[in-house]
Amino acid sequence: MLAAKYVGDRTIRIDQEDAPPLAPGEVRIDVAYAGICGTDLHIFHGAMDSRVTRPATIGHEMSGIISAIAEDVTGWAIGDAVTVMPLDWDGTCPACLAGNQHICQNLDFIGIDSPGALQQQWNVPAGVLVAVPDGVRLDHAALVEPVAVAVHDVRRSELKAGDRAVVIGAGPIGVLIASVAAAAGAEVVVIELDPSRRAAAEALGLRTLDPRTADQVEWVNEWTAGAGADVVFEVSGSAAAVLVATSLAKVRGTLVVVAIHSEPRPIDLHRVFWRELRILGARVYERRDFEKAVSLVAEGAIPADALITSIVPLSEVGAAFETLEGGKAMKILVDVAGVGE
Amino acid sequence: MLAAKYVGDRTIRIDQEDAPPLAPGEVRIDVAYAGICGTDLHIFHGAMDSRVTRPATIGHEMSGIISAIAEDVTGWAIGDAVTVMPLDWDGTCPACLAGNQHICQNLDFIGIDSPGALQQQWNVPAGVLVAVPDGVRLDHAALVEPVAVAVHDVRRSELKAGDRAVVIGAGPIGVLIASVAAAAGAEVVVIELDPSRRAAAEALGLRTLDPRTADQVEWVNEWTAGAGADVVFEVSGSAAAVLVATSLAKVRGTLVVVAIHSEPRPIDLHRVFWRELRILGARVYERRDFEKAVSLVAEGAIPADALITSIVPLSEVGAAFETLEGGKAMKILVDVAGVGE
Repeated sequence: MLAAKYVGDRTIRIDQEDAPPLAPGEVRIDVAYAGICGTDLHIFHGAMDSRVTRPATIGHEMSGIISAIAEDVTGWAIGDAVTVMPLDWDGTCPACLAGNQHICQNLDFIGIDSPGALQQQWNVPAGVLVAVPDGVRLDHAALVEPVAVAVHDVRRSELKAGDRAVVIGAGPIGVLIASVAAAAGAEVVVIELDPSRRAAAEALGLRTLDPRTADQVEWVNEWTAGAGADVVFEVSGSAAAVLVATSLAKVRGTLVVVAIHSEPRPIDLHRVFWRELRILGARVYERRDFEKAVSLVAEGAIPADALITSIVPLSEVGAAFETLEGGKAMKILVDVAGVGE
Repeated sequence: MLAAKYVGDRTIRIDQEDAPPLAPGEVRIDVAYAGICGTDLHIFHGAMDSRVTRPATIGHEMSGIISAIAEDVTGWAIGDAVTVMPLDWDGTCPACLAGNQHICQNLDFIGIDSPGALQQQWNVPAGVLVAVPDGVRLDHAALVEPVAVAVHDVRRSELKAGDRAVVIGAGPIGVLIASVAAAAGAEVVVIELDPSRRAAAEALGLRTLDPRTADQVEWVNEWTAGAGADVVFEVSGSAAAVLVATSLAKVRGTLVVVAIHSEPRPIDLHRVFWRELRILGARVYERRDFEKAVSLVAEGAIPADALITSIVPLSEVGAAFETLEGGKAMKILVDVAGVGE
């Protein structure tokens, strides 16, 4: 089989190798599609070299078909369409014992900390499998993982139908959060500096705001009759966004920190105090988020076709990373089985 | 009657004047004791001159006896011992309409935005009165307002019996939060740089930690068997405390922002994201917090005598401000009626 491996120095190498033998408790997936995400891009840049053991088969957004099952695994059949919730927790740390396995203090994030989906045959513990219902296209199913991130962020915010939500940042996760929030009955505006990302969000039917031409605080106050937004999602990773975000939220409003901020950011704690705001960190997902994400993709509530900018063969993974780097694509899928367009 | 007035330029003037006539809906209180709080000190320093109309009768922590009642007021009798919840909301702003009157977007904080308790006869709307039960000393009753702040902060944190809580800052509010959290069944540690404040907290039976001699993160991790604190209260107002606070909290732990931070503070949003932390702003109190505070003072759950550093006559208010400025007192009460020691 073929496997794409990050070997360091902004380089992906395609290796021909044998699939590893199936261990007890495992299932082999013939990977159909793998999406490339922002974290993969960070790995490609070398920003996570201290965490990632090279050569590393990365990739954690995927879909595929079960091709082998260890003898001790029940409940799955060869030919089943699946995706993977790529979290492997230790079950024994304080976070796990308190019921927060998804953010286990010693979490193995499959595809970062252990081998991922950019290989044609992928062995995973059966516990991470999530069924893909009949009728859902496998390219669409490869979006379930990022949709689950968005579902988790929206669930954590306790957003209700009728709420007004601001999403700062129109990258793939920002756009998915906006879509999931809209599907939950919220009115949503997406704030984004980049004109092409704004255009992409608008093409998905989302309302956008350019913070260079509109006063964000004034706009949101007018939109909410002086109250402020019920929920603000910070998905941009920018310091300026963090500073303005607290001014966009209503009294007792919620700010969800979704983006990765690699350094401490100045935040207006006086506003947090004054309005009794709530700031919530949100990371990955729980199984119920994954299952909800499968439903949303199956129902067509996520604009999957519009989100998939292109599908490339496994041999072009390196080029795909470079395309994403330029911010010129929303989501690129890799046709891992080599049956792409 | 006598009234102490902030006239600007770090000056308090004692005026002799007639009590204003009682308006409909009002009750007159013969003020017994008024406590001086950090906000009063900010006013004295001139830091709130843009908000405070001078000459200003300040003061919002108090106890007293009803001496007159407007004809249309029911439910109160002359001679009743009372304290005041000094919040006057408009009832019509989005925050009020959403049930958050205590942080009304146009809140009149009585004693800051309108005349306060540093006068011998004080007219207030009957709606702000809170009964002081028989048997509670009036000097202790003057602590109810800051205790209500602490009750609100602890309630907002959703702290449970058995939780481990860190309080950063051993000023009067920090010490009260620690006392209220301990009364709720939590184990508490108070982190404080200043040796005399640490000693004062220890004298109240609180465990303390000197961040200059102990590694706070290591200490808390050991104390919590590697989990981190359930709740961290930031009551110091210091930038360094904000930066460390996120490292002290467990996965899904809560950080309550109690202190006033006059400028944006760098905060470790990566940690907020990684551990799915919750940061809550907490300000003033609701009526149930005030009533709970009365109960705690009445039950002796608050070390009232130990907290009251001294009681001074009205004529010495200015000197009391200077004592507090030096950080040499926990709580100074003013004997407004002039019947002090």
